[in-house]
Amino acid sequence: MVAGKGSPLIGILGGGQLGQMLALAGIPLGLRFRVFDPSPDCCARLCSEHVCAPYEDIESLKRFADGLDLLTYEFENVPTSALDALSSVVDIHPNRRALETSQDRLLEKRFFSGLGIEVAPYFQVDALSDLEQGLNEFEGRGILKTRRFGYDGKGQVRLNREVDTASAWVEFGEKPSVLEAFVPFEREVSMIGARSQSGEIATYPLIENVHRGGILRRSTVPANASDELELQARHILTMAMEALEYRGLLTIEFFVVGEKLVVNEMAPRVHNSGHLTMEAFATSQFEQHLRAVCNYPLGSTRLVRPAVMLNAIGSIPEIQGIASFPEVAYHHYGKENRPGRKVGHVTVLGDTGEEVERHVQEILKKFPELG
Amino acid sequence: MVAGKGSPLIGILGGGQLGQMLALAGIPLGLRFRVFDPSPDCCARLCSEHVCAPYEDIESLKRFADGLDLLTYEFENVPTSALDALSSVVDIHPNRRALETSQDRLLEKRFFSGLGIEVAPYFQVDALSDLEQGLNEFEGRGILKTRRFGYDGKGQVRLNREVDTASAWVEFGEKPSVLEAFVPFEREVSMIGARSQSGEIATYPLIENVHRGGILRRSTVPANASDELELQARHILTMAMEALEYRGLLTIEFFVVGEKLVVNEMAPRVHNSGHLTMEAFATSQFEQHLRAVCNYPLGSTRLVRPAVMLNAIGSIPEIQGIASFPEVAYHHYGKENRPGRKVGHVTVLGDTGEEVERHVQEILKKFPELG
Repeated sequence: MVAGKGSPLIGILGGGQLGQMLALAGIPLGLRFRVFDPSPDCCARLCSEHVCAPYEDIESLKRFADGLDLLTYEFENVPTSALDALSSVVDIHPNRRALETSQDRLLEKRFFSGLGIEVAPYFQVDALSDLEQGLNEFEGRGILKTRRFGYDGKGQVRLNREVDTASAWVEFGEKPSVLEAFVPFEREVSMIGARSQSGEIATYPLIENVHRGGILRRSTVPANASDELELQARHILTMAMEALEYRGLLTIEFFVVGEKLVVNEMAPRVHNSGHLTMEAFATSQFEQHLRAVCNYPLGSTRLVRPAVMLNAIGSIPEIQGIASFPEVAYHHYGKENRPGRKVGHVTVLGDTGEEVERHVQEILKKFPELG
Repeated sequence: MVAGKGSPLIGILGGGQLGQMLALAGIPLGLRFRVFDPSPDCCARLCSEHVCAPYEDIESLKRFADGLDLLTYEFENVPTSALDALSSVVDIHPNRRALETSQDRLLEKRFFSGLGIEVAPYFQVDALSDLEQGLNEFEGRGILKTRRFGYDGKGQVRLNREVDTASAWVEFGEKPSVLEAFVPFEREVSMIGARSQSGEIATYPLIENVHRGGILRRSTVPANASDELELQARHILTMAMEALEYRGLLTIEFFVVGEKLVVNEMAPRVHNSGHLTMEAFATSQFEQHLRAVCNYPLGSTRLVRPAVMLNAIGSIPEIQGIASFPEVAYHHYGKENRPGRKVGHVTVLGDTGEEVERHVQEILKKFPELG
């Protein structure tokens, strides 16, 4: 339950598109929003108060937190010093343990392994000798990932016998890392679920994802996944949320290997692969996250219509071109175009998966950049 | 097509819940909003720039209009002086003729009659003698309505042989009015449609409405209406939009009398009876209005799911109570409670009309104030 008189005021660390979509979903629930974001033209400024300062500015963080009913985040790479300053003043959900676990790939892998959940084989790398030993174990191939501050394929490098390990390690900045073995996966899927303080849990069905260059390009529901995989994912997500005494929305990305799921990573927040929930499900991930952190009853996660989401990376087609296709939801984040940047997405809907796929192919013929 | 660099900036006269829902629908389209509203805590301030001044403040109106790509309104009772000040600076859609026609019940009735469309029998009233003559023609009964500035049952009085006509006329303020005969209707319905400058038209199916005390209480789709009535309504709406060379969304409210429609009134804007389009249709009325005024291709008006909207008048149940029902969309306008005021609505969804009605009855059992 949210305290305070009148409309509850929710703070969000990060005012990017996720913060914007949270606020757009929350205003009809009677909530008001304040975001903290160092960028003066962050997306969420259009529908929230905006405190514009760097995450290191403790005074601004305190001013931001003043009067908030609760604090959540769209962005997990928040410096510990900022969390220290904030957590004494306002309740933060999802909680600090969830945030800290997801901030560090090594802690995250240990967390899942500790629950008996399979993750990609990994090796802790703090020095060149670790990296060499790890590559040796993984038959000369693997992906080196920084423990902290990686996203959208950043902070990663693929290694194999053709790459000189010593110079790769220097180029990588010699940062505390993990080396992951390649997982020979068939597909990638994610599951999103929410838990409220009372322990109520609601999970969405699996979403099927296609990445390119480490960036999500396309998500599809229903996923090509057996009931057995749905069950496995729901079980893992539920275990993770319960272990973390979680309040809010949690996303786990998986590799599908035969009839088995291997955890890739988790995000303690709304997730790009869940954008299609806005049109395809009875309750969007954004509303669900707000319901969970505010301790409102969770919403129905029933699939209403099959859907495909296509990310717009670097630039987004003009609405005039997209809007002429039937039943496409257009989402422009109001950001400047920049190579590799997520600047919007479109969600294609239909009565059946086949109909959606037909529409997708027509759209891709005209706008191959969405592919 | 909207001119201007970067995100188009749309002005809205009026920053109430309709303005708020327009902005919430438009931000994902890449639009930005600025509202003009005399109330410092108007709903739309949460998701738009807000110029707070009275409609008579011409300087503030000009400041408001500066830099807008186009201007629309959520509220048709805009003083002529304000329109004069604005229309020289910025394009206004729907156009001035539509606005002026809808501002004046007499002009509105003449407009429909002139197109050969049936309206409730009426009598122009400028003096007591007109009122007496009109009542005489209508067998002593009728509804006296001010020509201008009436809404939600305000500016209306029911007259019959028990009421003293002379004192009723004085109490009414002796304002230019129309006396309407009672129409012995079976049901009330509305149809919403949009037209863009190119002449493209898209209409939604009929929506069935229940009013009490002149205020909309409940809307239902699909309406209890024959194909013949759907056709009649579509024909009337199309004729009206074409006659007005309309750009934007237009709502017409009808009385159903047997298999015949009688026009009650029109609104050149998004409409309370269309709130259920947000969840029940492929495109919401808010997005559709913006597509039309911006000259984007119009969206699909296909019904996705049956729905009932219940207005929250005076107060709205807390979200905690409503959210525990399955598949109810909660809309809190962020206004203070006040008797007779529209402060929110809920939209109840389901796979079939029967399922929706079952949910509605369960909700009304717990929250009879929504009935």
